[in-house]
Amino acid sequence: MIRQADVRLRPATAPCRRSPRHSASGCNRGRLTKDVALALLGNTLPTGAILVVLITILGPISGAHFNPAVSLIFALKRELTARDTVIYIAAQVLGGILGTMIAHGMFALPLLDASMKARTGGAQWFAEAVAAFGLVATILAGIRFQRAAVPWLVGLYITAAYWFTASTSFANPAVAIARSFTNTFSGIRPVDLPGFIVAELIGAVVGMLVMTWLLRPEKDAPPLNPEAML
Amino acid sequence: MIRQADVRLRPATAPCRRSPRHSASGCNRGRLTKDVALALLGNTLPTGAILVVLITILGPISGAHFNPAVSLIFALKRELTARDTVIYIAAQVLGGILGTMIAHGMFALPLLDASMKARTGGAQWFAEAVAAFGLVATILAGIRFQRAAVPWLVGLYITAAYWFTASTSFANPAVAIARSFTNTFSGIRPVDLPGFIVAELIGAVVGMLVMTWLLRPEKDAPPLNPEAML
Amino acid sequence: MIRQADVRLRPATAPCRRSPRHSASGCNRGRLTKDVALALLGNTLPTGAILVVLITILGPISGAHFNPAVSLIFALKRELTARDTVIYIAAQVLGGILGTMIAHGMFALPLLDASMKARTGGAQWFAEAVAAFGLVATILAGIRFQRAAVPWLVGLYITAAYWFTASTSFANPAVAIARSFTNTFSGIRPVDLPGFIVAELIGAVVGMLVMTWLLRPEKDAPPLNPEAML
Amino acid sequence: MIRQADVRLRPATAPCRRSPRHSASGCNRGRLTKDVALALLGNTLPTGAILVVLITILGPISGAHFNPAVSLIFALKRELTARDTVIYIAAQVLGGILGTMIAHGMFALPLLDASMKARTGGAQWFAEAVAAFGLVATILAGIRFQRAAVPWLVGLYITAAYWFTASTSFANPAVAIARSFTNTFSGIRPVDLPGFIVAELIGAVVGMLVMTWLLRPEKDAPPLNPEAML
Repeated sequence: MIRQADVRLRPATAPCRRSPRHSASGCNRGRLTKDVALALLGNTLPTGAILVVLITILGPISGAHFNPAVSLIFALKRELTARDTVIYIAAQVLGGILGTMIAHGMFALPLLDASMKARTGGAQWFAEAVAAFGLVATILAGIRFQRAAVPWLVGLYITAAYWFTASTSFANPAVAIARSFTNTFSGIRPVDLPGFIVAELIGAVVGMLVMTWLLRPEKDAPPLNPEAML
Repeated sequence: MIRQADVRLRPATAPCRRSPRHSASGCNRGRLTKDVALALLGNTLPTGAILVVLITILGPISGAHFNPAVSLIFALKRELTARDTVIYIAAQVLGGILGTMIAHGMFALPLLDASMKARTGGAQWFAEAVAAFGLVATILAGIRFQRAAVPWLVGLYITAAYWFTASTSFANPAVAIARSFTNTFSGIRPVDLPGFIVAELIGAVVGMLVMTWLLRPEKDAPPLNPEAML
Repeated sequence: MIRQADVRLRPATAPCRRSPRHSASGCNRGRLTKDVALALLGNTLPTGAILVVLITILGPISGAHFNPAVSLIFALKRELTARDTVIYIAAQVLGGILGTMIAHGMFALPLLDASMKARTGGAQWFAEAVAAFGLVATILAGIRFQRAAVPWLVGLYITAAYWFTASTSFANPAVAIARSFTNTFSGIRPVDLPGFIVAELIGAVVGMLVMTWLLRPEKDAPPLNPEAML
Repeated sequence: MIRQADVRLRPATAPCRRSPRHSASGCNRGRLTKDVALALLGNTLPTGAILVVLITILGPISGAHFNPAVSLIFALKRELTARDTVIYIAAQVLGGILGTMIAHGMFALPLLDASMKARTGGAQWFAEAVAAFGLVATILAGIRFQRAAVPWLVGLYITAAYWFTASTSFANPAVAIARSFTNTFSGIRPVDLPGFIVAELIGAVVGMLVMTWLLRPEKDAPPLNPEAML
């Protein structure tokens, strides 16, 4: 899902494209704060909140994946057919781009733009892999232990991961693609997409492998004193 | 419901009416921050929180609509009589104005004032339609899939929509009317009311139509692998 | 319950007593921010969060009143004996003062101090009455309709009321007394206590009267379409 | 668990080590805000959020202790064997250090560093004891009264304790050790570790003793009017 609040929260240091369409002052329009931490806060809280809502109301209809990396995991676990996986991923990418256009429309920006925000390098890729690893772990263990809580767990996870990663935790290839079409705080240069997407897929697959081991049938698990459990 | 916190969170750039009643310094009174993002945060968190409370404690008594657009949807769905709908809308509008007066009274401002805050134009109207669309979708799907969670879903939705829309997501004609009576951060010029109200009603009706299709009886729905569902 | 975070969040404009014990620099110690909205945020979030915790873990033991105005309401409703009410109120006041001392101890401040923060006047008293009214309404309707959710409802209510009132919503005579012993952002001059306490008690009693009417046995209630209920 | 967000939220006043590895500008990299309250906010919200997630998804597997002081309490209550306690504590300390390395890796910092942030003195130690006392009280009463809510209670408790203590509520010896390896906002000098760890253990044990008394079998408890309970 696209994080539309990003559009407004362009901090002072954000790259600003000077083109006939963007005057210097137009470039400043929509900027709510000069504080990057506050901009992050204004992104994390609504993103987490709307994720709880969307997964609760769309989960019973489609599973509420929103995320190609997550759909891929379900395909690898043979819980989604190859055909459905392809359709899901197409819908996720198109939905992300449509969301970008709607967000831009609401803020009177060009409907699609090319991001100039550089996000690349080993540290960023590592952060994306960590973010996707944690997301998949949260979803798989959440479904196993407390299915009804999954909307909350995912919302809380993404809210936190925004802060504990260096990459603002895209953790979602469809979101990465969508965000390459916005030249705001949340953007990512198209040229930086492959690195992010590969890192996210690797993190997701590693997450699946680790959780498959951690959630293996109980008779293989080490005996634990149930009284010690929270 | 009126967002009373708005009264205090007038950022430095807010329009300030200079009149005998408002000295230049009085105009600054009650301003807590110069940062617009922080002012938004100070509005979104309490609004979402109190919505959870109000819908939980008033829902069993009246349905906790608070919103003419929502009552209209229930009337169109034949779940509220025409007579009750009219009474509800009157109560919602009067309640909003009373709330404005109470908020102003607590901050020692004139009980009612005329807003001078311009909120108009296609982008703003589009944002209001998006906000009302999402609110109706949240309520209708929430009632269908997780009735007990509706107070949380609405609170979280409004908290998020404040940020992802360009109009701070009034999403409620009674709130728009109430906010035309306050000359603070949250106000809207009376002349801008019709545009907002029409946009909200259109968004709400489109939301109802889309959800009626999305929530149609299951035998028409495409077969989905239940294992894929969160 | 005392809001100990207040101790640290003294904004730049807070009254600062210059005495041999407080050097000018000592006066600044512990100040985290110059932004009053941020100081409020840093008070509202932890206060709401810890209220959910305290009411959940202490409610089954004592009822988790913490608030003389609430205990008074239960006494008026004949759900608490006169003797228990007196003991509860004494414990609440002493607990508040002890909490103030612990908070001051953690921040290396004098254990008890006299507040010099003026909080008085009709608007402030009205705000306190509104805050206590809402708190009692939340508790009484919450117990009636969703007893298990009361810790969340009270935590969310206080988080919101901090913002929508002009008085930061003490809503609690024991908290008012405790806060008269701290010369920080959260303090209240001892001379201002009677106005706050009387306003809180009036608001609480009016809240009880209104909710007694609103929650009267259903046969007296107007017939409502249950389908319209959220 | 290590609070990785700390890495980024180094406020302007944080100690900055000038070494060949850290140029003056490198020292500023990663700093998101100059406001200490905002830095705290950016730490407390993700920490609380991820705690809810981690305890929900790992609690059924291991008990989700994460905290030597908590494991010690369960050992003292004979609910964890001495052998398991030792293994748990080793895993907690190693996990904390590994988390520090992952966080540093994501932000392109040296994987391990020595903190130069002084955290010492009676007020800080008292604050740590208070924080650990409250954490143990929350866990023990939460398990007794509402086991399913424990992830939320712990997340909310830590979010609040960050603010109401003077020490940012480490409340966890493994976290203290891990944070001695980061020279950021969240660090603690290795030399200050013993004071923090001893204070945390004392607070935890006192918390266990008080809760053992408060949660003793009901026939010893004073008779309470059940109607007064929330």
